Amino acid sequence: MALAEFELIREHFQRAGTRADVVLGVGDDCALLTVPAGMQLAVSLDLLVSGVHFLPDVAPEALGWKALAVNLSDLAAMGAEPAWVTLGLTLPAADAGWLAAFCRGFYALAAEHGVELVGGDTTRGPLAIAVQVHGFVAPGAALTRAGARPGDLICVSGTPGFAALGLARCLGRTELPEPLAATALERLERPQPRVALGRALRGLATACIDVSDGLAQDLGHILEASGVGASVEVERVPRPPLADADAALQAALAGGDDYELCFTLPPGRLPGLAAAAAAGGCACSVIGRIEAAPGLRLRRADGSLLPLARGGYEHFG
Amino acid sequence: MALAEFELIREHFQRAGTRADVVLGVGDDCALLTVPAGMQLAVSLDLLVSGVHFLPDVAPEALGWKALAVNLSDLAAMGAEPAWVTLGLTLPAADAGWLAAFCRGFYALAAEHGVELVGGDTTRGPLAIAVQVHGFVAPGAALTRAGARPGDLICVSGTPGFAALGLARCLGRTELPEPLAATALERLERPQPRVALGRALRGLATACIDVSDGLAQDLGHILEASGVGASVEVERVPRPPLADADAALQAALAGGDDYELCFTLPPGRLPGLAAAAAAGGCACSVIGRIEAAPGLRLRRADGSLLPLARGGYEHFG
Repeated sequence: MALAEFELIREHFQRAGTRADVVLGVGDDCALLTVPAGMQLAVSLDLLVSGVHFLPDVAPEALGWKALAVNLSDLAAMGAEPAWVTLGLTLPAADAGWLAAFCRGFYALAAEHGVELVGGDTTRGPLAIAVQVHGFVAPGAALTRAGARPGDLICVSGTPGFAALGLARCLGRTELPEPLAATALERLERPQPRVALGRALRGLATACIDVSDGLAQDLGHILEASGVGASVEVERVPRPPLADADAALQAALAGGDDYELCFTLPPGRLPGLAAAAAAGGCACSVIGRIEAAPGLRLRRADGSLLPLARGGYEHFG
Repeated sequence: MALAEFELIREHFQRAGTRADVVLGVGDDCALLTVPAGMQLAVSLDLLVSGVHFLPDVAPEALGWKALAVNLSDLAAMGAEPAWVTLGLTLPAADAGWLAAFCRGFYALAAEHGVELVGGDTTRGPLAIAVQVHGFVAPGAALTRAGARPGDLICVSGTPGFAALGLARCLGRTELPEPLAATALERLERPQPRVALGRALRGLATACIDVSDGLAQDLGHILEASGVGASVEVERVPRPPLADADAALQAALAGGDDYELCFTLPPGRLPGLAAAAAAGGCACSVIGRIEAAPGLRLRRADGSLLPLARGGYEHFG
């Protein structure tokens, strides 16, 4: 790196910090940080590559928001408190206007969650973003994927499927009436990480994951990590209000990029769910039950099984 | 992501951990980690992009080593103890042989420094790597860029310039006799992060940086952060044994990718330098002195000034 790049970084990313636990932020070989005494550090690194995770013509402000949102969603899924973020930006060219817009989106969401950018790297290359969040959680309080037990209820926040519709529309694969189209695009481009809900689920949920690759697939990760199976009652799965009922269900079960939380809790804790949903600012729906028999069964109202379509987004293969 | 990718990740990156401070490693939404009581966390994120930071035909084993090495070098420059690493891999295709070779290099260096891979992301796209290291340093003990004071001696570890020669040879821009050619290629592809030296410099050095972009340019960052200037006596700068003296000096002053440490210390602490160099397993040379007047002056033996060539590697512009 040389002068032009250092100045770009300085201009756009070297802002005055607000967190007392950042001893040294952007600008040295490392950031120096203080984790609160007795707390565990939760970290997650995500990659976003142009043409894979976002459309090449996406507005940079939306991209800045989304890059942080998908990463904060991992902290939400662990029930961790967001604290710091590092950012790696690979750009085909140094475009001050693009950077300014990207920063608007990125910092707007960071401010909402009190997250401080503490370091990173910028380089020339095909447009791609690496983001790592760092958060805190008390020992034993984190929501992992491995705690679901037979009998637990399966829940999902919000309404998964909108983002998949938004993407289908951007790709010209579907037409959507307003205001559905606007909602779908907003969910695709500006997902709201369920940080407050994750926080409220500590001590309540036995397992949790964020729905980035599709509800059925991400629930599958809980089942695998917990060594259990599940039945989902498909008519209880919240879905976008599409005229085509099959397409709506398919979007809700297999559509990625919504960043809702899918979690499990014992029936005895169900009374706490309403308070958690209120604290999280979103509806939470019970959609099924954990079972001992391995595998995921999607049950229709008449008891018949819906074939499990190959869902989720596959990067390879 | 879907099955093929999850299996790739599992096969290659989900190894049994060795560190007791990793509560939860690869495989959940976040890793959960424990920072030792009273220690600060040091983090650094680096990007390596094909065609920018490495040649597209580099051997994957060397790339795996180097990706971690350049990142550990940032911890070394802070005097921090390496602990954990996260890895983001963007690959054009899922090639098991490539991944196995990359992992050989990556894990070999990780094992040398007791570093554990705790998380990351894998995706499809143009070959690129994001690596974040995490280490520990006691409050007040970190070596920043900002502590150099007029009168301090300027030092550099090892012999900068080999990696630049190795790159020039790979690009067919220079011929090198053996064994110089082999040494230069080894330095380019398998740099040794100066972690032990950084550790030994705690309490000794007033400022430190790793030489990734060229000695003159990286020293310039210390000068800027410390609000000082410097004179370097060019005949004291260690350099590769080239017949062309000018080319050797140019490589040592402006060549990047060596990952030696450049640091400052008060003359009164000079007696401690030999022990630090021995602990670091590398020579350390005094090459100049910090001065109050801003700017970097390169002085020849006769006192005349060497014009400061535009050095270092510029990604943009």
